[in-house]
Amino acid sequence: MDEQTAQKRLQTVRQQIRSMNLDAMILTSPENVSYLTGFMGHDSWLVIIGRRTLLVTDSRYAEQARGECVGCKIVERKGPITKAVADIVCRSKSIQAVGVEKTCSLQIFGELKKHIRVRFKPTGQLVESVRRTKDAGEIKAISTAAAKAWQALDRTLRHLRAGMTERAAAGLLDFEMCKLGVVPGFETIMAFGANCSRNHHQPGRRKLRRNDTILIDFGAKVGGYCSDTTRCFVFGRPTRFYEKVYYGVQAAQKAAMSRIRAGTRLKEIDSAARNVLAERDLPVYSHGTGHGVGLQIHENPFLSKIAKGTLHAGDVITIEPGVYIPGKLGVRIEDDILVTETGHKILSKDRRFNFSNNKMPILKSR
Amino acid sequence: MDEQTAQKRLQTVRQQIRSMNLDAMILTSPENVSYLTGFMGHDSWLVIIGRRTLLVTDSRYAEQARGECVGCKIVERKGPITKAVADIVCRSKSIQAVGVEKTCSLQIFGELKKHIRVRFKPTGQLVESVRRTKDAGEIKAISTAAAKAWQALDRTLRHLRAGMTERAAAGLLDFEMCKLGVVPGFETIMAFGANCSRNHHQPGRRKLRRNDTILIDFGAKVGGYCSDTTRCFVFGRPTRFYEKVYYGVQAAQKAAMSRIRAGTRLKEIDSAARNVLAERDLPVYSHGTGHGVGLQIHENPFLSKIAKGTLHAGDVITIEPGVYIPGKLGVRIEDDILVTETGHKILSKDRRFNFSNNKMPILKSR
Repeated sequence: MDEQTAQKRLQTVRQQIRSMNLDAMILTSPENVSYLTGFMGHDSWLVIIGRRTLLVTDSRYAEQARGECVGCKIVERKGPITKAVADIVCRSKSIQAVGVEKTCSLQIFGELKKHIRVRFKPTGQLVESVRRTKDAGEIKAISTAAAKAWQALDRTLRHLRAGMTERAAAGLLDFEMCKLGVVPGFETIMAFGANCSRNHHQPGRRKLRRNDTILIDFGAKVGGYCSDTTRCFVFGRPTRFYEKVYYGVQAAQKAAMSRIRAGTRLKEIDSAARNVLAERDLPVYSHGTGHGVGLQIHENPFLSKIAKGTLHAGDVITIEPGVYIPGKLGVRIEDDILVTETGHKILSKDRRFNFSNNKMPILKSR
Repeated sequence: MDEQTAQKRLQTVRQQIRSMNLDAMILTSPENVSYLTGFMGHDSWLVIIGRRTLLVTDSRYAEQARGECVGCKIVERKGPITKAVADIVCRSKSIQAVGVEKTCSLQIFGELKKHIRVRFKPTGQLVESVRRTKDAGEIKAISTAAAKAWQALDRTLRHLRAGMTERAAAGLLDFEMCKLGVVPGFETIMAFGANCSRNHHQPGRRKLRRNDTILIDFGAKVGGYCSDTTRCFVFGRPTRFYEKVYYGVQAAQKAAMSRIRAGTRLKEIDSAARNVLAERDLPVYSHGTGHGVGLQIHENPFLSKIAKGTLHAGDVITIEPGVYIPGKLGVRIEDDILVTETGHKILSKDRRFNFSNNKMPILKSR
């Protein structure tokens, strides 16, 4: 991260801190710490007091922090992290109100309160609300992640063979990403046959068979930013019913995507996809239609039936309708999309794995 | 998990709940939920009210829960999880005190308090204290995980070539684990050369060169249980100084291990390893000497300078001293050990990667 980006982000967050009448803020969420400092390690907290920004880390991460951090002072603690943070805060006599993130645990909050005798205010979404709007660098990172992920998928599909387990196939895809210089953004979902109906299936010993259907939900991480995409394939010949389901999901995704632009209600995008499936007499999925994606794999905004609010320009979201029939089949198609003032841009666009490709994606069974 | 194991664990936890004068307990930690039910998914909480045990999950995990869960009722929620849990608790009129885990976030705690108008008591270590003592099935799972991890390491080392990046090598090791039917237990640390001094190095673009030193900290997961081991190698010829460091760390590990038995103070194990390094004029590491390992990669007990308490029979711990010289080198040797009444048993024992092997592990550079 460059100095300018770090300063800009910190400035926005400092304004929020001041507007909440807080004298200091303790950030414990690793993604928020990364966002403001460029630091990619763990177990390190950021303390913001006025113009000062301090990263409290330990010997395991000190070297990395010195190499990655921008715009903050690095404090290498010896004792417990809550004690080290308390020492910093207590040194500033004028501090009366301190913000802590609502994502922090009761345990940590309790320890902070024990060491720091001031008024605490749990805050939600303070940095997250800033993170929601992606800048050019972030958009580039997500696009690159998606491009690398497709490249890895392409290589993986060429090596799929009957008899391969879900776990081995998932491992191969992850390895292909590593060879391309990226890491998996999350635990790859690789499901064969009836397992495809399990939304969050953990790849197991199920072996690939002729005419199996395949669902792959995966992503790569570039500079901390994740891509998150899903594609389905048939390893041989699809059934008529599978085709009906596949094209139904494809149409649902298109319907949702065509409505994306700044100002559209989140709920409207969600129902656009569901309506297509209902009209075709297909079972309507119970998960959300999409979610924001960035430093976290699931972040604001969330697109669901009960979602409040609208899309903003700069949001990067997934659109991922699906049809699931337990014991039988599952189809989901998912892409990553940038919301613009006038419409959208597909960040996960790819010639080989074009979402709107009208052809059923069939793999030669080997 | 079999019915009997689940019942035994639940019974112990129920006794703890009663002894704390709680009418109900809400468990939000995924590992604690797995431990008591056998469920391996996420985002699902366990509610214990008297003799009743309910897993609150959603459509993404319902199918998996029905297949995996033992000894509990499965509730598939439609709305937010806090609301669903509140509905269950509020249905029992006699409930006055409810326990929640201290690992739960301020956000979740706030939402639960909003929906449930009873006395809440944050509890720490309620299930964790039961989890600390491993039973035969758990010990078997960790041993199997370690055995598979070594097998994957053996295959990986044969494919190491000059020019390979840390990331590709880490990806290869993960892939070899997947091919053996297990998954990586945590993000594999694969460090070359000077990067070895970074305790929690994230594998990057650094390429393997002739005469490089290599540090690999990795583990496999079997049935949710992790192994956690570290080995160091030289890809060619070691320097005299590297040899001195390597044998120093080996001796430090041996010294700590020789003292392991039920009743030994945690602090004593920790200082045994440190003393060996200090005596040899080697820099003493600032991380702990070891930690418990099980469903979590880091769990009770923690072996450090400030640790309180003693080892118990049934503890499974790592012993992992190291020497780190930033910009120059890093060596760590780590094994997984079962504490017994009279001594210990090395669960990560392996003929090929024997920790106490007096020979410096040299790889032919290719």
